[in-house]
Amino acid sequence: MATFHDRLARASKSNDSILCVGLDPDPALMPVEDLFEFNRAIIDATADLVCCYKPNLAFYEALGIPGLEALMRTIEHVPEGIPVIGDAKRGDIGSTAQAYAKALFQVFGLDAATVNPYLGGDALEPFLEYEDRGIFVLCHTSNPGASDFQELPLGTGNGFRPLYEQVAVKAGEWNRRGNVGLVVGATYPEELQRVRSLCPDMLFLVPGIGAQGGDLEAAVKSGADRRGEGMIINASRSILYASKSREDFASEARRAARETRDQINRAREAIGR
Amino acid sequence: MATFHDRLARASKSNDSILCVGLDPDPALMPVEDLFEFNRAIIDATADLVCCYKPNLAFYEALGIPGLEALMRTIEHVPEGIPVIGDAKRGDIGSTAQAYAKALFQVFGLDAATVNPYLGGDALEPFLEYEDRGIFVLCHTSNPGASDFQELPLGTGNGFRPLYEQVAVKAGEWNRRGNVGLVVGATYPEELQRVRSLCPDMLFLVPGIGAQGGDLEAAVKSGADRRGEGMIINASRSILYASKSREDFASEARRAARETRDQINRAREAIGR
Repeated sequence: MATFHDRLARASKSNDSILCVGLDPDPALMPVEDLFEFNRAIIDATADLVCCYKPNLAFYEALGIPGLEALMRTIEHVPEGIPVIGDAKRGDIGSTAQAYAKALFQVFGLDAATVNPYLGGDALEPFLEYEDRGIFVLCHTSNPGASDFQELPLGTGNGFRPLYEQVAVKAGEWNRRGNVGLVVGATYPEELQRVRSLCPDMLFLVPGIGAQGGDLEAAVKSGADRRGEGMIINASRSILYASKSREDFASEARRAARETRDQINRAREAIGR
Repeated sequence: MATFHDRLARASKSNDSILCVGLDPDPALMPVEDLFEFNRAIIDATADLVCCYKPNLAFYEALGIPGLEALMRTIEHVPEGIPVIGDAKRGDIGSTAQAYAKALFQVFGLDAATVNPYLGGDALEPFLEYEDRGIFVLCHTSNPGASDFQELPLGTGNGFRPLYEQVAVKAGEWNRRGNVGLVVGATYPEELQRVRSLCPDMLFLVPGIGAQGGDLEAAVKSGADRRGEGMIINASRSILYASKSREDFASEARRAARETRDQINRAREAIGR
């Protein structure tokens, strides 16, 4: 089986897109009631404009068993060839980490997952053992609280660097099988650039543009690799809820996705991809 | 409604126990096939010996929708008056954190949950707003990889201390509503003692005795507060799988739980509770 990174590159090339649409269905914002019907309409309207989809498990768990059933149907509905990243931010140890990896990769059949580095490398090993899947390690998140710990200087035995930079360095070490990426928020372009300089060839998943206010051009400039690639830019609410009307939410999502993809591609061209 | 800490104290007093049984059903180890039937037998055999139960969500998610249905039935089956901690180690931002808190506290009806501090205080606020629930913040975990980040010195603007100590200090600040506790592994008694000295009155959830090899007496000595209380000691595999036979797994779980509870109480008496 091709690796996640290969599958992603193929989808990205075929749709000329590094845009990921975050499938975060919020009943308070959705114009239709049924989670799966909402997701299906969004996927059908955007599948030729994205490189991947990213459901955040929280929104499904918040609706209990029916929510998780909708998640399974959603993952199955994504067209062959478009990878699905499970935004789960899991992190646990030993046999528990094995159970989470099994849940995400085997039960839900996700192509990739986000994980939390706080528990250290041995806690991530059960995920990394799935060589054909992708693992995105939280590095610098897009929220204000990222400064509480991530930005503080950490003594590494070899000088000091911010915790998020040390996570980036360790993720490079954990990447022996080539299946590791990093989550770095678009709301912190300077930090994104620092991480890129530490990890010139690593794949980044970049949330925080759109509703969270991150600047798209700055994110591309700071986060892209030498070829104007190496990153996935996620947008959720600005696409899902581009219109709140039953009549046109899907076509407006398509319009918003196309605009975002094209805006990203113009920014990539500006840096000479 | 009484707070989680009040409900826990009542169960602890009534059963003379600070033992938590971790409900981590592993199909490879269980003597019966059905998850819920296994948990029901364990709960029925131990409910007068524990202060709470702690299902780890990973083991249920690994079995998909039927696993999560078994989790819901398990939580409902725990007798009134015995709190249930959801070991979920969740951590996400904004509306996503709200969705996780809703999933754990409203949908699954858990009394408390474990959370990951990497994303900072604003990411935990949606959990903390549930004033009658308990939130246990991962501080020093019980695995070898805890040394990758948690033990490294962090510059706090006011000197340096290990990351896990800074998490403990921040958790004290987040505890304005009195609903915050810490997860500190029994496998690191020195670090447990350091956290106790930083947080003399905080509630600790202490995994790592039994199958993980942590020393019970050392854990009690290092982690208990001035009254020999302030901690919950978790054991999972050493109790659940005390026997692997269909015939006596429940009675052997009871025997193991009673022995563990009594051993903990003797250690508490040795430090003069």
